[in-house]
Amino acid sequence: MTAVTREDVVAAAGRISGLVLRTPVLEVAPGLFLKLELLQHSGSFKVRGAFNRILSAGTLPDAGVIAASGGNHGLAVAYAARQLGVRAEIFVPEVTSPVKVTGLAALGAHITQTGAIYAEAAEAAAKRAAETGALAVHAYDQPEVIAGQGTTGLEIMEQTGGVDTVLVAVGGGGFAAGITLGTAGSGGSDGGGEGDGGSDGGPRIVAVEPERIPTLHAALREGRPVQVGVSGVGADALGASRLGGLAYDVLSGPRVLSVLVPDEAIVAARQVLWERHRVVAEHAGAAAYAALLSGAYERGEGERVAVVVCGSNTDPATLTAP
Amino acid sequence: MTAVTREDVVAAAGRISGLVLRTPVLEVAPGLFLKLELLQHSGSFKVRGAFNRILSAGTLPDAGVIAASGGNHGLAVAYAARQLGVRAEIFVPEVTSPVKVTGLAALGAHITQTGAIYAEAAEAAAKRAAETGALAVHAYDQPEVIAGQGTTGLEIMEQTGGVDTVLVAVGGGGFAAGITLGTAGSGGSDGGGEGDGGSDGGPRIVAVEPERIPTLHAALREGRPVQVGVSGVGADALGASRLGGLAYDVLSGPRVLSVLVPDEAIVAARQVLWERHRVVAEHAGAAAYAALLSGAYERGEGERVAVVVCGSNTDPATLTAP
Repeated sequence: MTAVTREDVVAAAGRISGLVLRTPVLEVAPGLFLKLELLQHSGSFKVRGAFNRILSAGTLPDAGVIAASGGNHGLAVAYAARQLGVRAEIFVPEVTSPVKVTGLAALGAHITQTGAIYAEAAEAAAKRAAETGALAVHAYDQPEVIAGQGTTGLEIMEQTGGVDTVLVAVGGGGFAAGITLGTAGSGGSDGGGEGDGGSDGGPRIVAVEPERIPTLHAALREGRPVQVGVSGVGADALGASRLGGLAYDVLSGPRVLSVLVPDEAIVAARQVLWERHRVVAEHAGAAAYAALLSGAYERGEGERVAVVVCGSNTDPATLTAP
Repeated sequence: MTAVTREDVVAAAGRISGLVLRTPVLEVAPGLFLKLELLQHSGSFKVRGAFNRILSAGTLPDAGVIAASGGNHGLAVAYAARQLGVRAEIFVPEVTSPVKVTGLAALGAHITQTGAIYAEAAEAAAKRAAETGALAVHAYDQPEVIAGQGTTGLEIMEQTGGVDTVLVAVGGGGFAAGITLGTAGSGGSDGGGEGDGGSDGGPRIVAVEPERIPTLHAALREGRPVQVGVSGVGADALGASRLGGLAYDVLSGPRVLSVLVPDEAIVAARQVLWERHRVVAEHAGAAAYAALLSGAYERGEGERVAVVVCGSNTDPATLTAP
C-alpha cells in the first residue's frame, strides 16, 4: 500500500489552492479554536480530497469520474467535477438523507441510489467503474484523497499559530489521517510508515467516533481494520463500516488517541454549536466537539485545542431557535 | 454633539479585547470577503458597543444598566452585563421576535415588553432610567457605542489586508458609522466633523437599508435625521425610525454611499447565505449581501469588497434545506 506523507499534503495544498476555501478559524475561548470547515464548498471538507484526486490524474477518461458516498463525498465530487467541467457519476446508499440527494441532483451529477449502507453502494460503483473506465474517486482510502483532506491540517497550524491538540471526527479515517500528516511538525521525519502517525513534533490528534460506528476503535483493538456495525445519528456521513487501510497506517501511530462519544452527546453538541456559536453543523460535523463538551476528551489547563467542525449538509429546521 | 473619532475606536478595541470575539472573515471568491460578525457573542455585533459603553462608565450605579432594543442590542447588553456581573433591565417593543425574548430571559435580564415600535420602547426605558439612575446603553446613538461597533471595521482591514469597499446594513446607523471610522486610513485626518465621513484614505462604505426602513436615505435627502416608517422583514433588527445624530455626522460624509434593497432581495440573500456559504443569518444580517446579489450595488472589476453579515438571531427552521 502506498504511504502518504506530509509532502503529499503540501503538494496537494498547492494543487487545490483557489479551488477550495481557506475556511476560517474562530477562537471561541482563549486557546480553543473551531476550524469551520463546514463552511467549505459543498458543505464539507470532502472537496479538498476530490479536487486533489481529480487534478492528480492527468488526462481524464471520457467517462469522467465516479464515486460512492454517504453523501458529503458525493456532493464534493459532483461539485469538483462541475467546477472542472468533468462528467460525474455518483452512487449513494439508500440511507442518504434527501437533503443530500437533492444537492447532488442540483450539481448535475448522474445519481444511482443503491444498497443499504455505504459499502454496498461502493461495491456497485466499483463494478460500474470497471465497465466504463471512469476515474474512481474514493471517499477516503486513496493517497490523493487523504493528502487533499490533510490540507485542513496545514491551515489549522497556520491559522492558530499552533495547537497542542486537534479533535477530528473519524468515518473511513481519511480526513483524520490527512490532518495527522498535515499537522506534523517539520522537525521530525514525516509519517506514512506502518504504525507511525507522522512526526513526533505534531499535535495530539483526538480521533472521535460515534459509539455506534467505531471503525478506528475496533481497528486499533484488533490490530487491523475490521468490519463494524453502522447506525445512529452519524450514519449518513460517518457511515464507512471499515477503516481505510491507508488511514490505519497513519492513525495507529503514537500521536493519535481514539475516543468514542454516544449519539446523545453528538445531538447536544450540535445544538450548542448553534446556540452558542451560531454554526449549523450536521451531526457528524458536531462529533469532534461532542468529545470536548461531554468530557470524553478532557482539555488540560492552558492546552491549545482545535476542534474541526467538518460538515453542514443538514436541514436547519431540525435545530431549535437559540 | 460629541464627535466620535477613529482614536475612540482604537481605544475601544483595547477596552473590549478578550470580551468579544474576533469574528472570522471568509474569502468566498477572490477579493470578496464575508465578515462573519453574526458568529459574535449574543449573535450580533451589538456586544462590541455594549461592552465599550459599560466599561467606559467607571463605577456603575446599583441599578445597573438599562437598554431599549429591537432585540439584538438587548441581547448584547444582557450578555455583557452578565459577563461583567451587572444588573440589566431591557425594554423591547412588541414586534420583537419570540426567539429574541427567550434569549433575553435566558441571560437573566429583567425584561419589559412595551410599545409597538422601537422608539416607544426607548421612550419607556429613558423614563425608567431617570427614575432608577441606571446607566443607559443606547442601541446606537452614543459615542462609546459607535466606537465599540467600529472595532469590526478595524478587524476587517486587518483580516483582509485592506478592501476598497465595505457593505454594511443600517438601522440607527451606529454600526455603519463605527465601521466608517474604524476603516478610515491612518494617513488622513479622522472623522467626526460635521459632514465628514472620516479620513479620505478609507474604503467606500456602502450603507444598505431595506426600502421599507430608509432612515439614512431619508436623512441624506432631508439634510438631517427624520422620522421614517418601519416595516418589512428587517423591522425587528433594523427597526430604528430615525437615524442617530452622531451617525448622521459620520454617514453624511463623502466616503458613504446610501443604497436601498427591497425585502425580496433580503429574503433571497438570506437563503443564498445558507445554501452557498452555510451561514445562518437573520434578515437584517443578510441586507448588506442583498445589495451585492441584487445588483443594487455593482462590484467593479477587481474591486476588493467586504460584506458584513451582522446577525444570526433567527429561527433556523425558517430556512429550507440546501
